[in-house]
Amino acid sequence: MHLSDRIQALKISPIRRLIPYADEAKAKGKKVYHLNIGQPDIKTPDQYFEAIKNFRPNTVAYAVSQGIPQLREAMSNYYHGIGVDYDPSDIYVTCGGSEALSFAVMILCDPGDEILVPEPFYANYNTFARLALANLIPIPTKAEDAFHLPPAAEIEKLITPKTRAIWVSHPCNPTGVLYRPDEVAMLTGIAKKHDLFIIADEVYREFTYGQGSKAFMSFASIPEAMDRVIMIDSVSKRYSACGARIGCIAIKNKEFLAQVMKLCQGRLSVSAIEQAAAVGLYSTPKSYLEEVNKEYKLRRDVLYKGLKAIDGVVCHEPEGAFYTMVKLPVDDSEKFIIWMLQNFDINGETTMAAPGSGFYAAANKGLNEVRMAYVLKKEDLERALDILKNAIAAYPGRLEAIRA
Amino acid sequence: MHLSDRIQALKISPIRRLIPYADEAKAKGKKVYHLNIGQPDIKTPDQYFEAIKNFRPNTVAYAVSQGIPQLREAMSNYYHGIGVDYDPSDIYVTCGGSEALSFAVMILCDPGDEILVPEPFYANYNTFARLALANLIPIPTKAEDAFHLPPAAEIEKLITPKTRAIWVSHPCNPTGVLYRPDEVAMLTGIAKKHDLFIIADEVYREFTYGQGSKAFMSFASIPEAMDRVIMIDSVSKRYSACGARIGCIAIKNKEFLAQVMKLCQGRLSVSAIEQAAAVGLYSTPKSYLEEVNKEYKLRRDVLYKGLKAIDGVVCHEPEGAFYTMVKLPVDDSEKFIIWMLQNFDINGETTMAAPGSGFYAAANKGLNEVRMAYVLKKEDLERALDILKNAIAAYPGRLEAIRA
Repeated sequence: MHLSDRIQALKISPIRRLIPYADEAKAKGKKVYHLNIGQPDIKTPDQYFEAIKNFRPNTVAYAVSQGIPQLREAMSNYYHGIGVDYDPSDIYVTCGGSEALSFAVMILCDPGDEILVPEPFYANYNTFARLALANLIPIPTKAEDAFHLPPAAEIEKLITPKTRAIWVSHPCNPTGVLYRPDEVAMLTGIAKKHDLFIIADEVYREFTYGQGSKAFMSFASIPEAMDRVIMIDSVSKRYSACGARIGCIAIKNKEFLAQVMKLCQGRLSVSAIEQAAAVGLYSTPKSYLEEVNKEYKLRRDVLYKGLKAIDGVVCHEPEGAFYTMVKLPVDDSEKFIIWMLQNFDINGETTMAAPGSGFYAAANKGLNEVRMAYVLKKEDLERALDILKNAIAAYPGRLEAIRA
Repeated sequence: MHLSDRIQALKISPIRRLIPYADEAKAKGKKVYHLNIGQPDIKTPDQYFEAIKNFRPNTVAYAVSQGIPQLREAMSNYYHGIGVDYDPSDIYVTCGGSEALSFAVMILCDPGDEILVPEPFYANYNTFARLALANLIPIPTKAEDAFHLPPAAEIEKLITPKTRAIWVSHPCNPTGVLYRPDEVAMLTGIAKKHDLFIIADEVYREFTYGQGSKAFMSFASIPEAMDRVIMIDSVSKRYSACGARIGCIAIKNKEFLAQVMKLCQGRLSVSAIEQAAAVGLYSTPKSYLEEVNKEYKLRRDVLYKGLKAIDGVVCHEPEGAFYTMVKLPVDDSEKFIIWMLQNFDINGETTMAAPGSGFYAAANKGLNEVRMAYVLKKEDLERALDILKNAIAAYPGRLEAIRA
């Protein structure tokens, strides 16, 4: 029976593809430290559960398609608090950041249209682009530069009449890079010059640890770019509520928002109780976010220290987003991860990361890279990295030097 | 700035497009009886709220992409109870029936591919098809035949090498038709003969009122067709929980399900608490569904009686799905609805329906038709229909006879 070329060309998520191997290891009694997936272990704020307790309508009816007014109001207040001027009417509630991203691509791209994206990039960007039959055009970045951007001229060379947008994860899943203010200005300048949109996926904005030029600067904080910055957000990581599936898409552009509304009406509504719960989340005191930030800074430091202690690893200090992409001295990181799950443990414990190749457009790239999420507590991270170090030393496919 | 042709070609939902006129009427103090939208007023079962009360994880984490095992198990038990042999592994949980439908189209269609659909059809089918750049090819049905299907030969004439599926709402939103066993057999026969899939949107299956050949027969109840029947379901209508956004897609076809998994992973997860709550819903005693069915049968009878009492209306006895599509003796049903909202009331009350043209592929069809949902209680329905009768009599664009 005939299935579409579109769907058959889609690959399984690199983050989840190896889960069957992990399940097998667990079935044999092994403990697996999951550095492969960005599922934080942080407690969800009580405000989520308080809001749920108070949700008691007679009928659990469709919520309005664009999102309930109280939540759009709460989101607007949050943005004003961080210097981003979004009114409730500029914000549409979505089913997670994922839905917001897929909306953006559908609104911008016809088949064959192009979106520039710093590579390596979050693997599901590929899913959303392929469903729209749009092409992601990589802006190459590399571990040796800590994944910062190349100069404007290099980026502009990639622009064609079919280019519709530049798509950034900021701070970046999977690389951990945080774009400096001069990089934010450069990209918005390019977008303006070539009449492109910017899809700014800023769901990790609370997870940065620097000051001054190393502090987070939103793409939506530049007033003259707000009609072309499509800002994507989510409660998932900020409030450790990934399972709530509440996000948003925001822009100061009425024509664009009219298209968002068509898509919102197509899927009718976002969960009513999750929207009510999200209103609760936005009332979480700032101290919660500060505590969480402190915890992640500690984890970042533990991860970086642990990685530096492994011979042959190319890594940089992650700047945000609780991920990092590192080169390991192995022949093929996917083989290595499977080998670890099947053949390596220390006292019945082993470590899992996500193979890097899934974060590149071309099949032959990122082969000795892995993405790691530092979402586990200090002791677990230390243990996971110690296992990794020993595993690399024992791995038959170990390389003496990383290939260039 | 450039937006995609795809999105610009999408129309605003006919069900929601006229809401601004209703809001305006309400702002002026009018009461509006909403027959335009299928939002039931029935109480959501307590089991939903009980399950929520017990949802208290430390972290609201991503649920597994394919849906939590308890819910897939509960759904499987439900299907076995109605003679449909789906195992939990045949069922993937989706964010409402809407997401399941959009998955089906993306999996089946490349641009230009075709899906046959009895017309008039649910307007959002058009949204899902257009996003995939697939074309809906109408199978014409009409009010005079109570919207039953034409003979197989008429349908087969529409099949081309690009045809991928036949898409039915059964029982049907918007027409209220319930396909007889011979029609179900005819469509599955055509699908088999021409190697097509059937997208069987059966979210209204609890809302039928007949026995024998007038009882509901699922497309998934024919064992030899289960590898090509893509069954779509939802808790929205069955348990009056539209705002929960829990649905599913089911098929006995491993290759198809592998593609569903890719899409599930793309959007990561369905709401964790809504899945837990849906497990609660599936434990609702059968008496709840029986009570609700009895109530809707009453409403159906009230609606049909009220419609028959209006001169010049072409209507049939609705067989299911709490909707009906009727011809009104007016020049243009959209103009008429706007006129009612702006200029007509009885003691400050007026009625709203959805204009019929939005349920047809061609712009010039269904112009004097409306879709009505009978989701209001008896007294309100009677009142709404009395207002409609008087409005038609007073309407300047009233026709003496319906155009053929």
